[in-house]
Amino acid sequence: MQIFADMESEVQSYARSFPRIFNRAKGEFMWDEFGNRYLDFLAGAGTLNYGHNNDLFKQTLLDYIKDDGITHGLDMHTKAKGEFLHTFNDKILKPRGMEYVMQFTGPTGTNAVEAAMKIARNVTGQQNIVTFTNGFHGVSLGALAATGNSHHRNAAGVSLSGIHRMPFDGYLGDNIDTTEYLDKVLSDSSSGINSPAAVIVETVQGEGGINTASLEWLRNLQTVCRKHGILLIVDDIQAGCGRTGDFFSFEEAGIEPDIITLSKSLGGYGLPLAVVLMKPELDQWKPGEHNGTFRGNNLAFVAAKSAIDHYWSDNKFSNDVKRKGRYITERLTDIVEKYGTGNFNIKGRGLFQGINCVNGEIAGKITKAAFAKGVIIETSGADDHIVKFFCPLTISDDNLKKGIDIVESAIKEVCAKTDDIPESVVYFEAS
Amino acid sequence: MQIFADMESEVQSYARSFPRIFNRAKGEFMWDEFGNRYLDFLAGAGTLNYGHNNDLFKQTLLDYIKDDGITHGLDMHTKAKGEFLHTFNDKILKPRGMEYVMQFTGPTGTNAVEAAMKIARNVTGQQNIVTFTNGFHGVSLGALAATGNSHHRNAAGVSLSGIHRMPFDGYLGDNIDTTEYLDKVLSDSSSGINSPAAVIVETVQGEGGINTASLEWLRNLQTVCRKHGILLIVDDIQAGCGRTGDFFSFEEAGIEPDIITLSKSLGGYGLPLAVVLMKPELDQWKPGEHNGTFRGNNLAFVAAKSAIDHYWSDNKFSNDVKRKGRYITERLTDIVEKYGTGNFNIKGRGLFQGINCVNGEIAGKITKAAFAKGVIIETSGADDHIVKFFCPLTISDDNLKKGIDIVESAIKEVCAKTDDIPESVVYFEAS
Amino acid sequence: MQIFADMESEVQSYARSFPRIFNRAKGEFMWDEFGNRYLDFLAGAGTLNYGHNNDLFKQTLLDYIKDDGITHGLDMHTKAKGEFLHTFNDKILKPRGMEYVMQFTGPTGTNAVEAAMKIARNVTGQQNIVTFTNGFHGVSLGALAATGNSHHRNAAGVSLSGIHRMPFDGYLGDNIDTTEYLDKVLSDSSSGINSPAAVIVETVQGEGGINTASLEWLRNLQTVCRKHGILLIVDDIQAGCGRTGDFFSFEEAGIEPDIITLSKSLGGYGLPLAVVLMKPELDQWKPGEHNGTFRGNNLAFVAAKSAIDHYWSDNKFSNDVKRKGRYITERLTDIVEKYGTGNFNIKGRGLFQGINCVNGEIAGKITKAAFAKGVIIETSGADDHIVKFFCPLTISDDNLKKGIDIVESAIKEVCAKTDDIPESVVYFEAS
Amino acid sequence: MQIFADMESEVQSYARSFPRIFNRAKGEFMWDEFGNRYLDFLAGAGTLNYGHNNDLFKQTLLDYIKDDGITHGLDMHTKAKGEFLHTFNDKILKPRGMEYVMQFTGPTGTNAVEAAMKIARNVTGQQNIVTFTNGFHGVSLGALAATGNSHHRNAAGVSLSGIHRMPFDGYLGDNIDTTEYLDKVLSDSSSGINSPAAVIVETVQGEGGINTASLEWLRNLQTVCRKHGILLIVDDIQAGCGRTGDFFSFEEAGIEPDIITLSKSLGGYGLPLAVVLMKPELDQWKPGEHNGTFRGNNLAFVAAKSAIDHYWSDNKFSNDVKRKGRYITERLTDIVEKYGTGNFNIKGRGLFQGINCVNGEIAGKITKAAFAKGVIIETSGADDHIVKFFCPLTISDDNLKKGIDIVESAIKEVCAKTDDIPESVVYFEAS
Repeated sequence: MQIFADMESEVQSYARSFPRIFNRAKGEFMWDEFGNRYLDFLAGAGTLNYGHNNDLFKQTLLDYIKDDGITHGLDMHTKAKGEFLHTFNDKILKPRGMEYVMQFTGPTGTNAVEAAMKIARNVTGQQNIVTFTNGFHGVSLGALAATGNSHHRNAAGVSLSGIHRMPFDGYLGDNIDTTEYLDKVLSDSSSGINSPAAVIVETVQGEGGINTASLEWLRNLQTVCRKHGILLIVDDIQAGCGRTGDFFSFEEAGIEPDIITLSKSLGGYGLPLAVVLMKPELDQWKPGEHNGTFRGNNLAFVAAKSAIDHYWSDNKFSNDVKRKGRYITERLTDIVEKYGTGNFNIKGRGLFQGINCVNGEIAGKITKAAFAKGVIIETSGADDHIVKFFCPLTISDDNLKKGIDIVESAIKEVCAKTDDIPESVVYFEAS
Repeated sequence: MQIFADMESEVQSYARSFPRIFNRAKGEFMWDEFGNRYLDFLAGAGTLNYGHNNDLFKQTLLDYIKDDGITHGLDMHTKAKGEFLHTFNDKILKPRGMEYVMQFTGPTGTNAVEAAMKIARNVTGQQNIVTFTNGFHGVSLGALAATGNSHHRNAAGVSLSGIHRMPFDGYLGDNIDTTEYLDKVLSDSSSGINSPAAVIVETVQGEGGINTASLEWLRNLQTVCRKHGILLIVDDIQAGCGRTGDFFSFEEAGIEPDIITLSKSLGGYGLPLAVVLMKPELDQWKPGEHNGTFRGNNLAFVAAKSAIDHYWSDNKFSNDVKRKGRYITERLTDIVEKYGTGNFNIKGRGLFQGINCVNGEIAGKITKAAFAKGVIIETSGADDHIVKFFCPLTISDDNLKKGIDIVESAIKEVCAKTDDIPESVVYFEAS
Repeated sequence: MQIFADMESEVQSYARSFPRIFNRAKGEFMWDEFGNRYLDFLAGAGTLNYGHNNDLFKQTLLDYIKDDGITHGLDMHTKAKGEFLHTFNDKILKPRGMEYVMQFTGPTGTNAVEAAMKIARNVTGQQNIVTFTNGFHGVSLGALAATGNSHHRNAAGVSLSGIHRMPFDGYLGDNIDTTEYLDKVLSDSSSGINSPAAVIVETVQGEGGINTASLEWLRNLQTVCRKHGILLIVDDIQAGCGRTGDFFSFEEAGIEPDIITLSKSLGGYGLPLAVVLMKPELDQWKPGEHNGTFRGNNLAFVAAKSAIDHYWSDNKFSNDVKRKGRYITERLTDIVEKYGTGNFNIKGRGLFQGINCVNGEIAGKITKAAFAKGVIIETSGADDHIVKFFCPLTISDDNLKKGIDIVESAIKEVCAKTDDIPESVVYFEAS
Repeated sequence: MQIFADMESEVQSYARSFPRIFNRAKGEFMWDEFGNRYLDFLAGAGTLNYGHNNDLFKQTLLDYIKDDGITHGLDMHTKAKGEFLHTFNDKILKPRGMEYVMQFTGPTGTNAVEAAMKIARNVTGQQNIVTFTNGFHGVSLGALAATGNSHHRNAAGVSLSGIHRMPFDGYLGDNIDTTEYLDKVLSDSSSGINSPAAVIVETVQGEGGINTASLEWLRNLQTVCRKHGILLIVDDIQAGCGRTGDFFSFEEAGIEPDIITLSKSLGGYGLPLAVVLMKPELDQWKPGEHNGTFRGNNLAFVAAKSAIDHYWSDNKFSNDVKRKGRYITERLTDIVEKYGTGNFNIKGRGLFQGINCVNGEIAGKITKAAFAKGVIIETSGADDHIVKFFCPLTISDDNLKKGIDIVESAIKEVCAKTDDIPESVVYFEAS
């Protein structure tokens, strides 16, 4: 461990929660250097929806490397990229009646968000972009302006401009549809909110605390956007690629975003990849305007194509994820009834669920206790108060049960020692 | 090709210059889908210093994947990361007497630049960062502010702030040491240039037109920075990793930057990787302040370690690059004497050289003609007026000669058809 | 009139509504070059609270000029300034138990706002300032960021940053106390609203449409500010100097702002003057940090002192304004019952009241018709939909009645020709 | 004096240098409360070009007030404004062959600069404005971005953006024409300097240290602006209204700015007034886009008209100013030869001249000693190292001589006690 202490920056974060040297991984399991096994309920923060080192894609990847397929080709056309595009079009877009153009950005989510914000601004000629409380979109300067977390924002070192922040669904209480507020400020020429290029939204806010927009709210948001000629960007980097059950997290709502960002699990094998999908008429980029050295990661194309072919050629996988999601809902419902003195509650949908433990100290104790029992699981939210159940979508039913059992026992232990679970502060009463 | 026309965004750039579907690559060669071979004088814009799919690292990479080594582990400690850190410390830093902490950022150069600018601003409490004319540092919003090219800047859609632009070495003519101008504005409380956190500089400006800072200028720049308590950031993403002969491009100047960014060829095999090196006292990051999903690309660690072990355990490789650099200088000197009616000139050092063809139309015709003869070569500079000789450092002497011969014949052809090579506009006369 | 058409910029505004050349003025009357008399219900947009060319101050002013008192002395101490400070302290601050330091800024309201925002930012070290929907604070760049009206904002030509916009009292419906929303975003570290230096608020939004904060809302706002260590700035430029009945518009609410801006009627005779009042501990200015050539307008000091001595030595004037305010409320209540088919409503308090005519076209016809009958009266609000009754506070009861009578007859005429008064769009239902 | 200590903000500046309570003023003299007389070589920082309380305008002003002429009329047409426009057109513009439209802004120089920058940005659609080292244009946020002094800039509390700073004439040494540098960055699409809306420049930088642009440099600047389609704004607030001999300071250079700002002495009697002159085709303002309560200061119109009629109907006054300017040059030349051990030097032109005393401590001692002898005189420049001779243009020859004699004796005293006058730091050698 000494080399990490000596050489690696203090900016490291997950390594602090899980202080092991990991060496090997498969499916929903990781092993440390001493051979200890851990059940992974973190899943690369959404990058490992198909599990670690998925054997379905592994040989394809090995063959490609063995045959000296193009590894790095800037943004030149390659066979691997062409095949990925074909598959994405045939298996994802066409069956959903979606027509989009794909931009390969630098292979990070934040870079896709930067590109999405740029093209929205350039096409509309407006600078302002509406973002939401508790949103997370990345930490490069453009995306950071859209991100809500002050921990990340304060690191900017310069002012973050070009956005206006609106309350996410539920932020003003259950009675207020915050899209009405958005509609009002956009209709009011003296509201002080500049006419925006776009709205950028996550359907489920992962880092923000698994805050889940209702399907109706998402539809209303789209309606307000269309009314005012504003582009709707869905940042589906964490919630997409099947995490909520469908490939895109917004499918259930029946909306049609103008721009979509994807990354994380898109690369299939945990390899860096990020794309922007935009409606064809928005593709007003000039050649090379948004560039980057690694914007065509061909190894990722190979695994990404395999992943789509295997998991998204029919509905089986999607249905299975939804089934597991219902199981998690049942279990978590049961857990919050037993523990947390009535103050805990469940959040999320599909395999994107968590328990709101009201405060971060308790949630932190729970994840720490779970890790001691062999489960890698993290918190999220403004105060790290949400325990986030985030296993690979491919997890076996047994391991899913086992993982939840372990976390439940951790909760039981922590709650036994904690007399007072504070109530959530409620600012706006439900009706 | 149809799928690219149908599905890929208009933002594509290199694919326009080299309209082929590439399929396989090895060393300094690429093959298209029809088996045609091309000599690669582009080298992934500096990512393929060790050539395509280098056999020295290939088996290590295959073995790692076969053994289910960690592919994706967020920023957790892994064996692969630990070994990379050891090797980098032992073979690169220690022999050069350098003590730095390493931050793994999102695996793109622009993300490393964003992180470098952030930490400089946070440590100093100043917002302003001095950048140079014709500099290129990436296109996410923070890095884009530092980038000079209006083609990229205009795509921002919002104002780019937090930087002050100064003239690079030579910009005001040979007689003016522009670090004196920098010293003056920093000494003058009424200059209107806010006290900066840092200066960010490339020793050789790749995208900007292979503008090469003299070693004395770099030393003077460091002196001015130290005098005024400003951090010196060397963006060595394109010029580093051996491109100019030494591992770091600034070694020859004998300077000690406070912060260094590396990416491109660091990953050895063309795999996404980016790091920030900073002096230990600057590592004032809070956990997770600058984060990102792919900030530990373990496949890249494996190849990166191999690359350093093989090429940087002694001086042989470095000396060989310098020898090839001298050969290129000789050849290009000869070429500009023969063609361009006295207006062409050479720029750069090491294997980072090019011919200034005065205007972009001529340079574009030359690279097009060279491609027709089987050489992939690109232009750079504000007007794309520089033909940039950018082969892998590992190229064989024969292929280096052959590549230059082909480009020379392309130049010969183009110049035969071009009566008037315009003279460079000279704003500031040399003494 | 030709010289105005030939020489004056198109930016002129009031001159368009009242296309006369005015020549003489007294009390609540103005005369044009042909000797036609107009009753002034605009009162210099709040600058002429004491009427035009008030005889109580006129001779003092003449004597001062005759005696060659200092007219212009930059910010040097003058006898006139000293006497003004004494009077302001003795008659305004002390009787109200207020302890404030006074800064003389450039003699425009916007300059006072700029200074207030600067000192708030410098004392707290925070950049963000909370502003409200429909607020108006001036059009120089710092104040313009705080202003809500897009007509003015769009003229900036650059992005307006450093503020966060919140909904004013009532903006989200009668059921929502928007200070609760403010409290929530300030308590939520992931809300995306940077910790602010200050809140800047008008108690009655003049340009924004005579939107009137309830006294409870103002108190709650102060409570939220104190809870989060945020400075409370009341911009009392239009609502202050007696317009709502008390000298300061916030007296009735019983709050104690940290910073207050005053201008408009402060100078007594319509002469340019603007000041910032701040609690002594906030006066952390360095000498000359905020400067300006005309920041001590001595003629204004002379009139300002007289005005305070005459009108604010006891409660008589204040009580009289309140009495007139009640009369206006009665009259306007009666008017909106009679006209506007139930959609018109009253807004405001004191001599700062108006009729919401739902849309701007109708309101514009009303003010135009009133002008034809000899009353100068203007609209305000995002859509210019409010008819703003804004006479001098010193108006005689007869002329007040006469003015209202005339406007009522104008309303009657316009409404007779207008079949459909549109209903106000209601976004948020009252309970 | 107690009331000032108790009540007035620490921001006061001139009051610190001249700690007296002034009471009366006439021509070039001021009297304190005890009847002590002072010769005024500060002249309201350029506001009192016609001296204090000039008898030529005084009666006109008194009559206007006596007759209840409009004092405050927002931006409505008044007889006083119409007559001022006529006179300005007939006596100033027409004889010089100038065709401009006039905008009345808030009555402060900084407000005129804000308006000039806005209209330039709006007409061109560009955000960037080129400003110069050591420039001073005001301290409201838009103008402050253009101002060079860090004392003022640091008070902003937010980042100042939208400008690019270039070196003023002489800043890079006598050999470098800095307009060539400007031409180069504007011609270079990769210079990193965004295409600007305008250049804003003072012909003589008053606050910046009486740095004087050569006439050739001004002409070259105009040429570069025209070549690149950039508007040329001359901020003539301090140097205009006769200070350098002509009404406009740029007349001698024969240039035709697109936009001109005037304030300070324009009002004639020291009364607040500020205007923007712009070529008619630039007057693309929408009604009221840039507004302000005091933008028509009618008392100032009355005095301004008188001032122009009296002083600018022929060349006599202008010639007299130039004659006095030559006298000052002679005297100061003589002084710097005698004192300052060869390191002092003269700066400026017309009645806008000063002595560069190399460092601020010495200059401060000189002005302090001069004040003790009855002369009010100030320093300027980044280090307050320039003693600025800034008397009313109407000063009598005797008093001019007397004032200079007194300052000379102050210099003599100070230099006698100062062994080492430091040499100016010279960054760029003259050829």
